[in-house]
Amino acid sequence: MHMTDLIEKKKQGRTLTQEELHFIVQGYTAGDIPDYQMSALMMAICFRGMTPEETAQLTMEMEHSGDVVDLSPLGEHTADKHSTGGVGDKTSLVLCPMVAACGGKMAKMSGRGLGHTGGTIDKLESFPGFSTAMTPEKFLETAENVGFVIAGQTANLAPADKKMYALRDVTATVDCIPLIVSSIMAKKLASGARTVVLDVKTGSGAFMETEEAAFELARQMVSVGKHAGRNMAAVVTDMDQPLGFAVGNALEVKEAISVLRGADVPDLRELCLVLGTNILVRSGLAETEAEARARLEKSIESGAALDKLAAMVRAQGGDPAAVYDTSLLPQAPVVHTVRAPRDGYIAAMEARDIGLVSMHLGGGRATKEDVIDLSVGVVLAAKDGAYLRAGDALAAIHAKTEADAAAAEEELLKCYTFSDKAPVRPPFIRGVVT
Amino acid sequence: MHMTDLIEKKKQGRTLTQEELHFIVQGYTAGDIPDYQMSALMMAICFRGMTPEETAQLTMEMEHSGDVVDLSPLGEHTADKHSTGGVGDKTSLVLCPMVAACGGKMAKMSGRGLGHTGGTIDKLESFPGFSTAMTPEKFLETAENVGFVIAGQTANLAPADKKMYALRDVTATVDCIPLIVSSIMAKKLASGARTVVLDVKTGSGAFMETEEAAFELARQMVSVGKHAGRNMAAVVTDMDQPLGFAVGNALEVKEAISVLRGADVPDLRELCLVLGTNILVRSGLAETEAEARARLEKSIESGAALDKLAAMVRAQGGDPAAVYDTSLLPQAPVVHTVRAPRDGYIAAMEARDIGLVSMHLGGGRATKEDVIDLSVGVVLAAKDGAYLRAGDALAAIHAKTEADAAAAEEELLKCYTFSDKAPVRPPFIRGVVT
Repeated sequence: MHMTDLIEKKKQGRTLTQEELHFIVQGYTAGDIPDYQMSALMMAICFRGMTPEETAQLTMEMEHSGDVVDLSPLGEHTADKHSTGGVGDKTSLVLCPMVAACGGKMAKMSGRGLGHTGGTIDKLESFPGFSTAMTPEKFLETAENVGFVIAGQTANLAPADKKMYALRDVTATVDCIPLIVSSIMAKKLASGARTVVLDVKTGSGAFMETEEAAFELARQMVSVGKHAGRNMAAVVTDMDQPLGFAVGNALEVKEAISVLRGADVPDLRELCLVLGTNILVRSGLAETEAEARARLEKSIESGAALDKLAAMVRAQGGDPAAVYDTSLLPQAPVVHTVRAPRDGYIAAMEARDIGLVSMHLGGGRATKEDVIDLSVGVVLAAKDGAYLRAGDALAAIHAKTEADAAAAEEELLKCYTFSDKAPVRPPFIRGVVT
Repeated sequence: MHMTDLIEKKKQGRTLTQEELHFIVQGYTAGDIPDYQMSALMMAICFRGMTPEETAQLTMEMEHSGDVVDLSPLGEHTADKHSTGGVGDKTSLVLCPMVAACGGKMAKMSGRGLGHTGGTIDKLESFPGFSTAMTPEKFLETAENVGFVIAGQTANLAPADKKMYALRDVTATVDCIPLIVSSIMAKKLASGARTVVLDVKTGSGAFMETEEAAFELARQMVSVGKHAGRNMAAVVTDMDQPLGFAVGNALEVKEAISVLRGADVPDLRELCLVLGTNILVRSGLAETEAEARARLEKSIESGAALDKLAAMVRAQGGDPAAVYDTSLLPQAPVVHTVRAPRDGYIAAMEARDIGLVSMHLGGGRATKEDVIDLSVGVVLAAKDGAYLRAGDALAAIHAKTEADAAAAEEELLKCYTFSDKAPVRPPFIRGVVT
């Protein structure tokens, strides 16, 4: 088998066989196939696409390019959630404790933030002492006992994806649905959960800017997961504005805790209920959506979900006191209120740019090596569609210094569009793909 | 300027500017742009194509990526010919002396053979002592005095093409017309002739198998050359069967000499007359095609063209006696006649495979390092459309040993298709593009 022939085959729009995809993924991971051939193939895939079976086979070859996590000791109710990345996305911190309280096993691998999006591990490090470093035994034991554990991604999970992603990034082959699908799903499949729910974001703060592309991505990821024998669902949600009100690590943890205590942060709470419902029903923990939703709501009311978060923080070396007293979380020295510059409705806000405001305050990374400040960020006082009078609070900036806050205020105000007419907003949850 | 953005631009089907193409070609030649980005760009070009201006600008950037030969001391009548590569193609050996005899200056860079096609330099080395190694001064002086000189390609002629071609070869991006055009024309433009005629082959022995693709390639090459201010013409010719009867280095020299002595090898003689007519008219050496053709025919009748070949061989260190006595050329020890296996018409012969028979006899190279035997090859006794009776001579194999000849006979017979009906053949010259 020659790589040049396989590139030619895809260039002509023909379908690669499983043996051919195996040869490609194994060869590329081992370094036998050079970058210049892989980039030519991936560009041909951008133009020619892949059949559903072909995408599934590529994904499974990538899944098996490195270690595969065996979660079978945890039984049938292992579940995982993946988000395509958004601003203010603290879903895992709310969803996982709720599902754990309902009998699910959320044994997750998670990452750190980069650019305008945050990472769950960074957020959890707001709890003093919290660590994701643990042995595989401890990982399984915590998942079994608590129902919720978060580890850093092990080095050898889907190494083919790591190499392919780095190459796509510098060859303009990132925005290609079969390659996005295989990249996300290879890691999810290798992570071992029986049930996988996906949160596909659409809008200005999301990777998939159009709703059409987001649905296509959702459908293809669900198809690949089912092809690999997993229980699947995907929710397509709005990322034209941040999720919830808080953007910044400790600020988001605080907001997540508030939801677990019963606060109604509408979009965040609803998203967690919909994702959780899908996990419980797909994994066989609930018979109907109504039953699933009622149990998840109960986990909040009873405090069981909050207790699960505390138990998980403790199991991973953190101080759980902050779960019950959020004043123990990192606090920024300066809190500065930004006020509405005019009367009117908030017609739009640039979610991605608000994420960048938080990053520039020190709450996010421009490069992987940056050290971040967990305390800083932005807390919105109002979201799209709210009517404000000039001088009303628009947002609170949490900063290290007054100078930082002033710079962030200027930057933040540019993120908003005001209008005299009430804007028409599509629903937050655009649809569920199963 | 970032290469990733330029790949994305072409991927979206937009046109690259001259500045962008300059950045790409310079960066790639210097090694600042890695192979994996260039291969992704070239694959995107395969799908999106290039505008005529874009192809011309790419070509001129490639032309200027290395040395450019200055033929201006030779005046306005410098001319060059390029063939896209065929089997038995000894055109240069006939055409250049004819044009030189009519006042043209053929200062050519030529190459060696690889695979099923031969190279002019190999053929000329059939003259004992012949060498293409010479100083630039000697090159110009010979062109000036004789009107015909052939040098090996200097190392730094269009180095961008050298690198891009090697990459295309292993990334399935060879069969892409704008890339083929820029590859051929960059070298031709850098070689400096004011007038360039192209012989674009079509058929089973050619790179462009369909006539449509051959005409498209011809049109684009002519367009690029004119854009660069050169006098241009392209002839599209048949390569379903070898050109002339002889395939093999010294055998082809002998056939070329026979044409210069007035022998009628129909396709070869006609091709040289058409190419020569275009050179004389385009370069201003003749007013009309009729005048040009008459002068070229006269150069044969008078012996002037043959004398030009002898003068050129002498100027390049070779023994010109063999021009007048071809028994002095290398002779193979074994000459074996292959006979027709049945009564019938020759309906088709695979030109490429006949080229490979000669290569396997030792007359061509499988790899660049192979040493070749100038004496061996195949001389056809009949071409497409001929009616033969079983036992009639089909071809003569010139070989080192009887065993080689026997192996070649078996291989050669597989190249033919016989038929009871006279085949319908399209004309040898399919058209001229100016």
